Amino acid sequence: MAFRVTPWEVEGDVDYQKLMKEFGVKPLTKKLLQRIKAHTGELHYMLRRGIFISHRDLNWLLDEYEKGNKFFLYTGRGPSGHTHLGHLIPWIFTKWLQDKFKAELYFQMTDDEKFLFNQKLSLKQANSFAYENALDVIALGFKPGLTKIIIDSECAGVLYPLAIKVAKRLTFSVVKAVFGFKNSTNVGSIFFTSVQAVPAFLPSVLKGKNIPCLIPHGIDQDPHFRVSRDILPKLGYYKPASIHNIFFPSLKQGNKMSASLPDTAIFTTDTPELVKRKIWNAFTGGRESIEQQRRLGGNPEICPVFKYYFFLFERDDAKLEERRQACMQGKLLCGECKQELIKRVNAFLEEHQKKRKQAKGSIKKYLFKR
Amino acid sequence: MAFRVTPWEVEGDVDYQKLMKEFGVKPLTKKLLQRIKAHTGELHYMLRRGIFISHRDLNWLLDEYEKGNKFFLYTGRGPSGHTHLGHLIPWIFTKWLQDKFKAELYFQMTDDEKFLFNQKLSLKQANSFAYENALDVIALGFKPGLTKIIIDSECAGVLYPLAIKVAKRLTFSVVKAVFGFKNSTNVGSIFFTSVQAVPAFLPSVLKGKNIPCLIPHGIDQDPHFRVSRDILPKLGYYKPASIHNIFFPSLKQGNKMSASLPDTAIFTTDTPELVKRKIWNAFTGGRESIEQQRRLGGNPEICPVFKYYFFLFERDDAKLEERRQACMQGKLLCGECKQELIKRVNAFLEEHQKKRKQAKGSIKKYLFKR
Repeated sequence: MAFRVTPWEVEGDVDYQKLMKEFGVKPLTKKLLQRIKAHTGELHYMLRRGIFISHRDLNWLLDEYEKGNKFFLYTGRGPSGHTHLGHLIPWIFTKWLQDKFKAELYFQMTDDEKFLFNQKLSLKQANSFAYENALDVIALGFKPGLTKIIIDSECAGVLYPLAIKVAKRLTFSVVKAVFGFKNSTNVGSIFFTSVQAVPAFLPSVLKGKNIPCLIPHGIDQDPHFRVSRDILPKLGYYKPASIHNIFFPSLKQGNKMSASLPDTAIFTTDTPELVKRKIWNAFTGGRESIEQQRRLGGNPEICPVFKYYFFLFERDDAKLEERRQACMQGKLLCGECKQELIKRVNAFLEEHQKKRKQAKGSIKKYLFKR
Repeated sequence: MAFRVTPWEVEGDVDYQKLMKEFGVKPLTKKLLQRIKAHTGELHYMLRRGIFISHRDLNWLLDEYEKGNKFFLYTGRGPSGHTHLGHLIPWIFTKWLQDKFKAELYFQMTDDEKFLFNQKLSLKQANSFAYENALDVIALGFKPGLTKIIIDSECAGVLYPLAIKVAKRLTFSVVKAVFGFKNSTNVGSIFFTSVQAVPAFLPSVLKGKNIPCLIPHGIDQDPHFRVSRDILPKLGYYKPASIHNIFFPSLKQGNKMSASLPDTAIFTTDTPELVKRKIWNAFTGGRESIEQQRRLGGNPEICPVFKYYFFLFERDDAKLEERRQACMQGKLLCGECKQELIKRVNAFLEEHQKKRKQAKGSIKKYLFKR
């Protein structure tokens, strides 16, 4: 089946092997994972399970690290709505990297992007979602001293003069080829990737020396950083390294979880009742009848409920494997599996929402200031 | 002869009647001049002489003014080098408008533009020329309380969030058609007109109510404001009105004075010796020999030296006419005419350079601050 991945849309069933080839990124090999483990002591479950699947220049980054040239982290969010569980994947992993490598994090909230690419969204709305989403970032436990949240529309004084240095090296032909822009694309959208490039070298500018950068991000964002990697060396900075996660599942069949289809995604602000309803209505890998399922077993490979455990709600590999086996052997029925997931998601959200509320008091400590 | 006028280049001998038609601007009629005079008591010599030749929506602007809806002024400079005398034309006229209408002036220094459009110019250089050029603006006597100089790269915090509102309404097709951009144009240049649009509605944003805007500018900048005028009403603001001056002559035959051909332009920072040399080497409308000139007379129509008097150095209409007649009748030779011009230009520059020096102490009072 055909698929299409851009930073703004994912269509069809993604063949990640094909996508990695198409994008020109390298798979995360066992050898590379061992190299990470040598520094972190353990491997994050997202690395063990291949939720992070590929990278650019991670070997170079570790070479530099081993020479004493520490890196900073950069990730972000396009604030077009509330945060859903899929958004947490790279953030949870980034938090782990911050802890293990004591790395500074620059977190970019691209309210300008979401305003420019979404006809119906006002800048005020996008900006207000940036603040909402920031609460979710902070709730995950990022260190205040090490974490700078950049809200694009409020940090333009710093971003724009650097973005135009990128923009000067980037033609319409290139963004047309990379992002599929047309003559009918607005000139703000055409310019935007220049702004997304900035956090990858901003710390080098601020500190007056080149600092390696590692960007954990959903693989759909790779086109932006492919552009950044072409241009940054021309400006005298390092190419940013990156590490890419695959897409969190939708509760319906097939696609990436999407904020534009709210019933197929669980948001961090959802109530327990809403979570229950959404999971209860989810597609599964189950059979048509209980009798069939007992006899033939379910199919966890195509099951969003199983994938929820895989991505977030069963971090113990042995227990996850038990669940997979029980499903395939017809021992675990979809109803039970959903009930347990509802319990776990709601327990997670109860805690997250508590921390999210507390984050309101500390958000200022996290906002980037020149 | 064919000609071509864009905001970045003027080629060939400009036929202003044709250009006005092509741009779709209206001539400044006698009736309209009388309407201005009713408010100002006198007409500036640049109006009397047709140095300001055309406009957009000036009748509307005066309607509003007469209803008590005062306007603000907006003009600017692309700081790619030192200020030459041609740049002073719209500024001197703007100063007169500020005095007569007690109008606020927003003066935009587009260091971002000059950086983006000029391969050889760094942002630092453009920014430093912005400060140099600001001294020339201040030296002309603009009121500190009424005058805000916006240096783009330093005011991006205010400009960018407004520029993207313009940019969202503007496609590549449009800027391609208006400015002649190509697929090889850089994405910063493609975006830039959005930034130039901002001062036309910035005071309306800052004051929370719609304020009419009048932009005095060289007619080559009209494409920018044509774009602004299309978009601003969609954002809920007035279309800016504008009034356009023709080009100051080069000291060589034909073209617009150009900073890229330094010997054909007199800069406000030139020494008396340099001024002398440049004028002495200027093209004139004189004959091949003194004998011929005495007999046939000179041709002031094609003479840059005469045009210098016309544009700046003889503001008395009767005396200008005397000079024209004396030239045409062979009574005034080019040498005498040049000698007098050297005297006047150097007297003007001596005074200007003194004020320019003083301006260094007061520049902070003029810089736009949110």
